[in-house]
Amino acid sequence: MATTMREKIVEAQRRSGSCVCVGLDPDPSKMPIDDVFEFNRAIIDATHDLVAAYKPQFAFYEALGLPGLEALAKTIEYIRDIAPGVFVIADAKRGDIGSTAEAYAKAMFETWRADACTVYAYQGSDSVAPFLEYPGKGVFVVCRTSNPSSIEVQDVVDEPSGETVFERVARQTIGLSDGGNVGLVVGATYPQELASLRAAHPDTPFLIPGVGAQGGDATESARLGGENILISSSRGIIYASQSKADFDIAARRAVEDLRAEIAAGR
Amino acid sequence: MATTMREKIVEAQRRSGSCVCVGLDPDPSKMPIDDVFEFNRAIIDATHDLVAAYKPQFAFYEALGLPGLEALAKTIEYIRDIAPGVFVIADAKRGDIGSTAEAYAKAMFETWRADACTVYAYQGSDSVAPFLEYPGKGVFVVCRTSNPSSIEVQDVVDEPSGETVFERVARQTIGLSDGGNVGLVVGATYPQELASLRAAHPDTPFLIPGVGAQGGDATESARLGGENILISSSRGIIYASQSKADFDIAARRAVEDLRAEIAAGR
Repeated sequence: MATTMREKIVEAQRRSGSCVCVGLDPDPSKMPIDDVFEFNRAIIDATHDLVAAYKPQFAFYEALGLPGLEALAKTIEYIRDIAPGVFVIADAKRGDIGSTAEAYAKAMFETWRADACTVYAYQGSDSVAPFLEYPGKGVFVVCRTSNPSSIEVQDVVDEPSGETVFERVARQTIGLSDGGNVGLVVGATYPQELASLRAAHPDTPFLIPGVGAQGGDATESARLGGENILISSSRGIIYASQSKADFDIAARRAVEDLRAEIAAGR
Repeated sequence: MATTMREKIVEAQRRSGSCVCVGLDPDPSKMPIDDVFEFNRAIIDATHDLVAAYKPQFAFYEALGLPGLEALAKTIEYIRDIAPGVFVIADAKRGDIGSTAEAYAKAMFETWRADACTVYAYQGSDSVAPFLEYPGKGVFVVCRTSNPSSIEVQDVVDEPSGETVFERVARQTIGLSDGGNVGLVVGATYPQELASLRAAHPDTPFLIPGVGAQGGDATESARLGGENILISSSRGIIYASQSKADFDIAARRAVEDLRAEIAAGR
């Protein structure tokens, strides 16, 4: 019986033979059908035996208002029903302190029933600790992101230690871990930083976005990241075809392709 | 006619003779009545002529699930109806990139109809720019927060420039501004940093939390922050009394007290 976030991820990987995480980012301008839940259901039906995790990106549901958030609730419930071993990450990038952070943690783990959520540590340890009070749940701390301007803050070097902000965020938040409930978000577009973070934190789960549309290389990410990773792709999978006739089949094929790219890095 | 975020704030201050921002943080363990919307309505009825802004803290609504989010929507609608000149800040601390940030901006400004929202800039300019595409709307970038562990990331000093992370965040995000749509969140518990940020950015709106329960001094914050500030208090106002009989009267009195403390700093 898996008891920590880390063990749950390992179990989901073993069951699926995969470290693929599919981002469920419903964008009305790209979806081939109108209904968000029906769209997600088709993607889930077509892919759940091949993936370790789903990652709903909360922004896309919030942008649709209360009906969008209802579709989010139904989507997570559906994953729990049809694929109970698949790990669910609430990609909400929350982060606050004290009673506010406690309220966000309650939202993520009780309202939305996620296994983990993404969080910011710009406010320091105070903004991560309240999320670690839920047994079996955990966080992925936004550490080194895949976008061009990530360097503005994340690459600032603390003198005299020589530690960058993103290295410090990793060290300090992993220091709060019970051994299994803190992971890092590390973008696939910065392979050198991925390799150095892995060297410093050999047992920490990494959530690696940025393959596909953003230009990161899945094979290289798998080679550098090792076993304890989830490689996330959203648009490259769920919008592999934008035709109503075959978007689910195309999504499954895109997951198979991503699995093959990852396998090439092992 | 106020056309930028900054002008809207100035107008709300002028109308109310106040720079008080009341945080609407409905916490079931503290609320004297059960219904979130009715609680907020009583607070708004009792205070709206005395305040420049309301700031719903999204975490508390999300923690209550879809009914909580429905109460949030009704609350903002009620403010728009009864107090159309009061500025509304969505304290959601969102932050992401590309199409995800666009979706969050849509949620904040279209779904929730806020005038401004709080955002993180840990991912750099990419994570702020999409929020600046809405005329008359804007952001408060989380810059220097009021909590003890804020120093872990925010005080890292970039060598050789000598610029701290929080100074860099301020400089780079204000650089994206049209002159009126970027403000900063600066905690009242760090007066020295508040003073230096004000010296560097004389015209930028500052949202100043951390007075009251967190120990910041409203008089000193007003003295150091100058005119273009919103001083935010949540618990100290909305839970000034936890009795059903007089919580609204006590909230009004607490706002009057805070106004007096601020006036003492002018």
